Amino acid sequence: MAKAYAVLSAIGADRVGIVDDISGLVLEGGGNIEESKMAVLGSEFAVMMLVSMEAEALAALVARTSEIEGRLSLKIGIKPTHEGSVAERGRPYSLETVSLDGRGILHSVSAVLRKHGINIEDLETRTERAPLTGAPLFRMKANVVLGQGVGIGALRRELEELQTAQDLDIILLPLIPTRRD
Amino acid sequence: MAKAYAVLSAIGADRVGIVDDISGLVLEGGGNIEESKMAVLGSEFAVMMLVSMEAEALAALVARTSEIEGRLSLKIGIKPTHEGSVAERGRPYSLETVSLDGRGILHSVSAVLRKHGINIEDLETRTERAPLTGAPLFRMKANVVLGQGVGIGALRRELEELQTAQDLDIILLPLIPTRRD
Repeated sequence: MAKAYAVLSAIGADRVGIVDDISGLVLEGGGNIEESKMAVLGSEFAVMMLVSMEAEALAALVARTSEIEGRLSLKIGIKPTHEGSVAERGRPYSLETVSLDGRGILHSVSAVLRKHGINIEDLETRTERAPLTGAPLFRMKANVVLGQGVGIGALRRELEELQTAQDLDIILLPLIPTRRD
Repeated sequence: MAKAYAVLSAIGADRVGIVDDISGLVLEGGGNIEESKMAVLGSEFAVMMLVSMEAEALAALVARTSEIEGRLSLKIGIKPTHEGSVAERGRPYSLETVSLDGRGILHSVSAVLRKHGINIEDLETRTERAPLTGAPLFRMKANVVLGQGVGIGALRRELEELQTAQDLDIILLPLIPTRRD
């Protein structure tokens, strides 16, 4: 039987046991969670995951979607996809920003990345209290891949301009496999 | 005007510029991204974010959903929510697992957390190559909150049993604000 891949998303009112319920669905179908991200967002709990499963089991899960949505009080989306292309020949970097205000920062940074044709592998932003001062900090952490045509010097210069213009720190470091994140 | 909160999810074929497009939508509406998680999953790019915006601007964004979906080749979901309840009185911990095989681990760990009534604040799993050996590793990282009735000793004992039974490492550490993650 063929192995199939799908992106499964789920959202519902936050409660204890929601991860247990959702991971149980995949396990029941004999599937595997290849990658996942989940978070409390406002008063909701949101999940997105890449799942691999026998094609028949996946079809059975899709067919049961509305029954499951009702039983677990979740809104579920399932989109078939492929295993993911072999990683582009490129240099992986981690990119972090820290600033007092987050307004517009994701947009400015992603616009620079787009201009250089850089692919974002994953990205996370959050607002948190600064140590000592308690000030609200906006933090962004991303993993990006610099393709062969991307000059690191030109990219760094442009990010430095952004740092000054928007009063933030940008830390761009080559991703080394053994680095503990 | 009242500030409104919503969970915005988006999914579409992965391409350069997708984050720029999505963050642009929020910025155009004068909104703020309070928290977000994004990732390449298979051949898709998936986004989930908590957005705050004037109620009218949010309604306008909702009204434009299908136009935006068509223009940006995305599937978008917008669910109204609240700012999020004040953090429960409890002890924040980070919980990590490392193992050779990921099958069923998220489910076993989340079942233990559910049994103790522990809330998961965010969670991420991924498969990556181990340093030196190149073996595929399954890693889970979560932030959890232990409410007042939760005994850390009983929880640790149960997680230790799981470690042995499923051949994995579980690292449960109190979250200290200044710890750089």
